Order: sequence, then C-alpha cells, then structure tokens
Amino acid sequence: MKIAIIGLGLIGGSLALEFRENHQIFGIDNNTEHQKQALELGLVKEIISLEKVTIMDVVIIAVPVDVSPQLTHKVLDLINDKTLVFDVGSTKEVVCNAIKNHPKRKNFIATHPIAGTEFSGPEAAIKNLFKNKVTIICEQDLSDREQLKKFNELINPLQMELVYMNSSKQHDKHIAYVSHLSHISSFMLGKTVLEIEKEEKNIFNMAGSGFASTVRLAKSSPKTWTPIFLENKEHIIKSLDEYISNLQMFRTLLENDSKTEIHNIIKETNHIKEILK
Amino acid sequence: MKIAIIGLGLIGGSLALEFRENHQIFGIDNNTEHQKQALELGLVKEIISLEKVTIMDVVIIAVPVDVSPQLTHKVLDLINDKTLVFDVGSTKEVVCNAIKNHPKRKNFIATHPIAGTEFSGPEAAIKNLFKNKVTIICEQDLSDREQLKKFNELINPLQMELVYMNSSKQHDKHIAYVSHLSHISSFMLGKTVLEIEKEEKNIFNMAGSGFASTVRLAKSSPKTWTPIFLENKEHIIKSLDEYISNLQMFRTLLENDSKTEIHNIIKETNHIKEILK
Repeated sequence: MKIAIIGLGLIGGSLALEFRENHQIFGIDNNTEHQKQALELGLVKEIISLEKVTIMDVVIIAVPVDVSPQLTHKVLDLINDKTLVFDVGSTKEVVCNAIKNHPKRKNFIATHPIAGTEFSGPEAAIKNLFKNKVTIICEQDLSDREQLKKFNELINPLQMELVYMNSSKQHDKHIAYVSHLSHISSFMLGKTVLEIEKEEKNIFNMAGSGFASTVRLAKSSPKTWTPIFLENKEHIIKSLDEYISNLQMFRTLLENDSKTEIHNIIKETNHIKEILK
Repeated sequence: MKIAIIGLGLIGGSLALEFRENHQIFGIDNNTEHQKQALELGLVKEIISLEKVTIMDVVIIAVPVDVSPQLTHKVLDLINDKTLVFDVGSTKEVVCNAIKNHPKRKNFIATHPIAGTEFSGPEAAIKNLFKNKVTIICEQDLSDREQLKKFNELINPLQMELVYMNSSKQHDKHIAYVSHLSHISSFMLGKTVLEIEKEEKNIFNMAGSGFASTVRLAKSSPKTWTPIFLENKEHIIKSLDEYISNLQMFRTLLENDSKTEIHNIIKETNHIKEILK
C-alpha cells in the first residue's frame, strides 16, 4: 500500500520503521531538517506535498495536537473515497469534534497508541516501539467497518492490543490521570531540583536511579507537550488539583509527625504494584 | 574477614551477596521470617545474636533510619577496638549526632550508597546493585584513617564511586531534593490515580511506560520510607513546598492558556537531559 505519514517525529518515524518493509512510505513535514533526516535514515521513500494524499491508501496524522484538527479536516477534503486516515494524538475530543460533520468522517479513525519515549524528532524513531503496547480507538462507530478492518490488518504485525473507548471525552479524562499528570509531575520535579541546584552545586552527584526514573519524562519535547496540556487543560487541572491536595495532605502529616497515617498511606499506595503487573 | 550484617533487607542482603564469596557473613535481624529467608537464600552463613558483634571485623548497619541511631550506639559499646562499623541509611545527621561523643566514634563510618530498587526484604537482594553507583561518606574526619582504608578495600570490588561530604546536614538537605522528594511525588501520584480509578474502572489499561516510570517508586516499602521522611522532615518540607509552588504556578499558566511560558518552562527543564547523562 501507499502510506503517507504527516509528521516525521518519534511516533510518525517509528511507524515508518514498522511499515517500510511491506509498504511504500511517503513523508510530509514542514520542517526541512526533519525531511532531510527522514530521507537519510530511510524512514520514507520520498517527501511529498500535502495535495498528494489524494493518491494514498493510508494517511497517518502524527503532528502536535494543536495542528491535527485543522489538518485532519483538510486531509479528509483531499483524499479519495477509499483512503484510510488515522491520527495518533494524545488527546481525542478536539480532533473528533473538528471532523464530526465532514462527509468523509467514516474514512477517519481516532487512535492513540500508548507508546513513546522522552525523545523526539526523526532520529528518535525506534523499531518495536509499539510491540505489546495498547492502542486506544475512540468513536469507532463513526468509522467505516471496512476502514477499521484495513486498520487492523495494517497494524496487526505491530502486535498491539486494541482497546475501544466510545467516548473521546472519557479518553481525554482518563489519559489526563495516567499520562498527562505524570508528565507535569515529572516536569515540575525536574524544575524544582534544577532551581535548588543553582545554589547547591553538585547535587546531581547524589541522584540515583530513583530520581532518574521519576524525572525521565521531564526530557520530553515542549513542541509535543505544550499543545497536549493546553488542549486537555480542563481534565488536567482537575487531576492536578487532586495531586496538589494529596501533596499538601502529606505535608501536614509530616509536619505533625503522623507516623501511622504516613505508613498506612504508603502501604495502600503500594497497591500500584499489583495493578501495574 | 568476619562480617556481621544487621538488617537483612534489600541493601543488607545485596551487600551479603557481594561479600559472601571472600568473607564469612553473619546475619542479625529481629524478623524471624527474614532470618529464615536469608539462610535459605545463602545470604548469610549463620544468624547470630547482637552480642556476637564483639568478635567481628566489620559490622554493617542496614536497618530503618529510626532504629539505627540507638542501635549504632549499642554496637559501638559492644565491638572490639579494631572492628569497623558502618551504616548505609538514607539520612545521616541523626545517626552521626547519636554517636558523636562515643569513645569508639572513630570506628564508625557514616555511608550512604545511592542504590536501591522499589522492592524490599531478603528476597529483593540482587547482585551488582551497587556497581557504578555512588557511595557518599559523611564526616570522614571523625573516622579513623585505618578504618577508612579498610572500608575502601572492602567495597573496592563493588566498583562504586566514593563521594565525601563533610557535613551530614548538607547530605540530608541535598538528598531531600534528589531522592526523598522523588519518592513523595511518586507516592502521591500513585495515590491520586488509585483514587480516581475507584470511580473510573480500567483506567490502568491506558497507562503506558511513562506512567510506570514516574510511579515506580510508589512501590517502595513503608517500613523503610516512613522513618526516612520523618527523620528528614525539615528539609523535605522545604523541598515539598517548592515543588507544590511550582505545580501551582503551572496550574495558573494552564488556566490562563499561557502557551509561550509553558513552552519555555518545559524547554528549560529539558536541561535535565544533559545533567543526567
């Protein structure tokens, strides 16, 4: 099949690595440096203009979430009747609403592969990024059955588990807790420690694998994450308020030397072990 | 050499695994289940009573930090003139102060190996836990030179980097930021998401490797961490206040759609990449 990937970053580039053996991959990106790297790395066969999506079998939209709603609408205007279009953004409500009434809505599938690293750009693309990971599909009833079948066949070799969530709003609410909040907690932890380090040199000599793990997401790209945070701000602010309130509660317990309560909270939270197994 | 390890958990047990080939390892632990496991796993040759430390060449104190100050004092009472005693706790000021005026102060070295996992107990003991990690040594001027030499020779095969920090207070302040705060941020993130999950089932289907990484430390033991948090609460509360204030600032930026500021903060925080290399 002829596949166009719009946005040759970590996700778009890693999809190219998976698909390039069995399909012809064409790249679309307005960053000329990324165009060059994608060609050099052999991620794509050719860089094409957006208008060329009309001759594609599949179009994948892998751009920041503030760009994708308008872009997806434009892509649906341009494609032929049989083209499958799917996006891979971390928020789903805005993009789904943007094309809700488009005559080619049924050609589109709203997807969110829960996969990534803290790195970005074509050079961050890696093989097997998606293996054994989950892909969420939202509003599947609005997508054509044939297109869903085509999508399943296309991504079957990636060995992902498909999870269907009818409501894109519910998706955005849940993902605020299990992904977006983690990123903010990590960014702000990184910021707090960088600030103290200005006065207290060499503090990072003392950092172990625990700190590295907790702060890993603070290496993530501002271009990807700023639009995600803003687009999902309603749900994120709610989760952030709950997080801050838990931190304040813990602070009070510490101040009052509430040993038993602190012990019990930690013990209950250890339940995360079983859940993440 | 004859080495007694008091506290056969993750750290004590992992040290036993490193030392058992070239030394005779004796175990002391008031948890009978841990005694049994340590014998079964071959971590120690024999379980002995505390009084037997008098015939040891080395005594390692690897118990929770609320137990170690008094215990270290007692061990110093019991040992012979040549015995080396060192602790491996995550806080250093209280234990150092507890034995400051002990006639055998010079037999003691205050150490903190920056190594661990989120697991606990003798069964969590692993080989190579300490390889290429840092061990901080505090108040080295109060330890006998010969004992410092003996310590260096003993842990040399573990391939750790030794970092000397004269002030145990400074140690506790810095470690609050790069270790203790990370644990609290992770525990409270776990708690926040477990709370929302009570209403919203299956939220963890959507959790990816980013969440798993950020919440990893929330699996850590309450027995180890409750005493650490309480003992270092002065520095932890300060770091926690700075963290909460950064989270609140970020919340305000989100609320006000301050795109440029959010982008810049993320970009500046990305600096953590270079630092953690």
